[in-house]
Amino acid sequence: MKTIEFVRGKIKIIDQTQLPTRLKHVYISNLKELRKAIKTMQIRGAPALGAAVGLGVFIGVRKSKAKNFTQFKRTLEATIGYIGSIRPTARNLFWALERMRQVAKLHCSKPIPVIKGMLLQEAKKIIAEDREACRKIGYFGAKLIRNRDVILTVCNAGILATVDYGTALGVIYRAKQEKKQVKVFACETRPMLQGARLTTWELQKNRIDVTLICDNMAATLMAQGKIKMVIAGADRVAQSGHTANKVGTYALAVLSRYHGIPFYIACPLSTFDLKIKSGEDIPIEQRSAKELGELFFKRPIMACGTKIYNPAFDITPPHLISAFITDQGIIRPPYKTKLKKLLRA
Amino acid sequence: MKTIEFVRGKIKIIDQTQLPTRLKHVYISNLKELRKAIKTMQIRGAPALGAAVGLGVFIGVRKSKAKNFTQFKRTLEATIGYIGSIRPTARNLFWALERMRQVAKLHCSKPIPVIKGMLLQEAKKIIAEDREACRKIGYFGAKLIRNRDVILTVCNAGILATVDYGTALGVIYRAKQEKKQVKVFACETRPMLQGARLTTWELQKNRIDVTLICDNMAATLMAQGKIKMVIAGADRVAQSGHTANKVGTYALAVLSRYHGIPFYIACPLSTFDLKIKSGEDIPIEQRSAKELGELFFKRPIMACGTKIYNPAFDITPPHLISAFITDQGIIRPPYKTKLKKLLRA
Repeated sequence: MKTIEFVRGKIKIIDQTQLPTRLKHVYISNLKELRKAIKTMQIRGAPALGAAVGLGVFIGVRKSKAKNFTQFKRTLEATIGYIGSIRPTARNLFWALERMRQVAKLHCSKPIPVIKGMLLQEAKKIIAEDREACRKIGYFGAKLIRNRDVILTVCNAGILATVDYGTALGVIYRAKQEKKQVKVFACETRPMLQGARLTTWELQKNRIDVTLICDNMAATLMAQGKIKMVIAGADRVAQSGHTANKVGTYALAVLSRYHGIPFYIACPLSTFDLKIKSGEDIPIEQRSAKELGELFFKRPIMACGTKIYNPAFDITPPHLISAFITDQGIIRPPYKTKLKKLLRA
Repeated sequence: MKTIEFVRGKIKIIDQTQLPTRLKHVYISNLKELRKAIKTMQIRGAPALGAAVGLGVFIGVRKSKAKNFTQFKRTLEATIGYIGSIRPTARNLFWALERMRQVAKLHCSKPIPVIKGMLLQEAKKIIAEDREACRKIGYFGAKLIRNRDVILTVCNAGILATVDYGTALGVIYRAKQEKKQVKVFACETRPMLQGARLTTWELQKNRIDVTLICDNMAATLMAQGKIKMVIAGADRVAQSGHTANKVGTYALAVLSRYHGIPFYIACPLSTFDLKIKSGEDIPIEQRSAKELGELFFKRPIMACGTKIYNPAFDITPPHLISAFITDQGIIRPPYKTKLKKLLRA
């Protein structure tokens, strides 16, 4: 199963807003459709967004009639700007856009059709690299897991958040391949319920023992000694190790520390952003009040006129993170120097 | 507005399952209806349950044709046993049942119609005392609040959880009466959304500034320094100070400690249970998986066959509780000796 593919000139994605009820695909052939798919979270998850926008850039420029690179660059930059404005937090999205920009720049002296071909090739390379990176994350992460471990996770950092394997859940898939029995508790992840809708769906599909809880029940399980470790994904990691991920992650990190439970962030190097010095510099998307109050419900869940606060992400400081599980291995504190070294290499 | 009243021989309650959409009353005239109302949470909140079951006992025995106390006692005990089996956690429910039992015992030599009258009188006394107790809690608790404080609360410990004033929210109502401006953040309180459905409704009605958040966003607000204190209610407090309250409360207590924020439990003395030595002895109700996965939603939120864990309450240890706000004043640690003294007095 692939979350994202390039099929007959279109980006084919799984429509994640339809899960777990229906497995439906959406075909994206222009930027407007891409915008809608990302905005409404038909596709989500930082690595998957990176993969999608690589192809998105190609789709945005492929019909360009530019006669020279200066003209072409204008379309390219407009496309990149447009895509970059859809959602602000996921690093991989901007990382992929930058890769596309650099490829065009590198081949600027070539004919425009060649540049277009290079862009498509780069987008496909991003996809191939994500598949590879997730498998490496799984390989390294599975070393942290013992037989019969019980793992808590939040949101969806699985197949559906990447091209086809997952980061946090990739670790679990790999552990299963290695014949380790694992149990997973999935936080439902309000307001958009990615944990309930997506994580239970893909874990069940892959025959992983999963139990759904409300986000506010994680502490109870920890107090009962039922959780061996927490593994979450990431949307953006600063140079300092401050990690933006789905709202609720930070609370789990604090709770893990209080209960003496290891707390891991699993993500590819493409999620790290050395330009961002610390947590407060990571832009946090504020999303619509409707998501919280109306979207999934039969009737309004709060009194008319109630104000709603709906940040999509939160920031976990590095001292609460036991390690990053990356495609280049496990990174333990102190993060700053290690990350600098690794990412500049 | 009253959550519970005795009107023309029936227990009149607000049907809380209909809020915030409709303000509808339900009239209870027999034990089966009472069971349904409590089980489905048409009425909920420990003090409100205490008030309801006092009247419930009267309703259960009023038609008794017993000719002597031995016969009457059989009906009374059957009634008490039946009511006591509906929900296991809220102390006030059992406390009220015990009061009713004691009143009957005290008047056992009197004619049965007189005993019935005494039981109704006692049930009304429980209601009157709850109104009084909540006002005292408000009075003492408001001393902890300064002008412009921002208070986080969970579930509903307000008018709707008591006869007519609230415990945690009673403190806020009193602070407002004293002309203190307060802002409230209400955790939606999954799975039953009492924070979203009930707390925003009654706070809006009483012109308190309220903002709704998902439970997993509380930590973010705390990290931003936006929360001055947390006030929650309680369902049962052990001799040790271990406090059972709506699931999610414990997580807030841990998060409060981590962020250096005072964490208060507001409840009447009737919620304390000296017979229970510690947290693990408090029975925790496990509720239906349907509440979590189906009840409020347009369509299933998790994959078919997913296991669900749904404890209705959690236990907060005393070392995380800054103080209890009770009708007999603020109780600060160490709790054990103070509680013993207070409750045996």
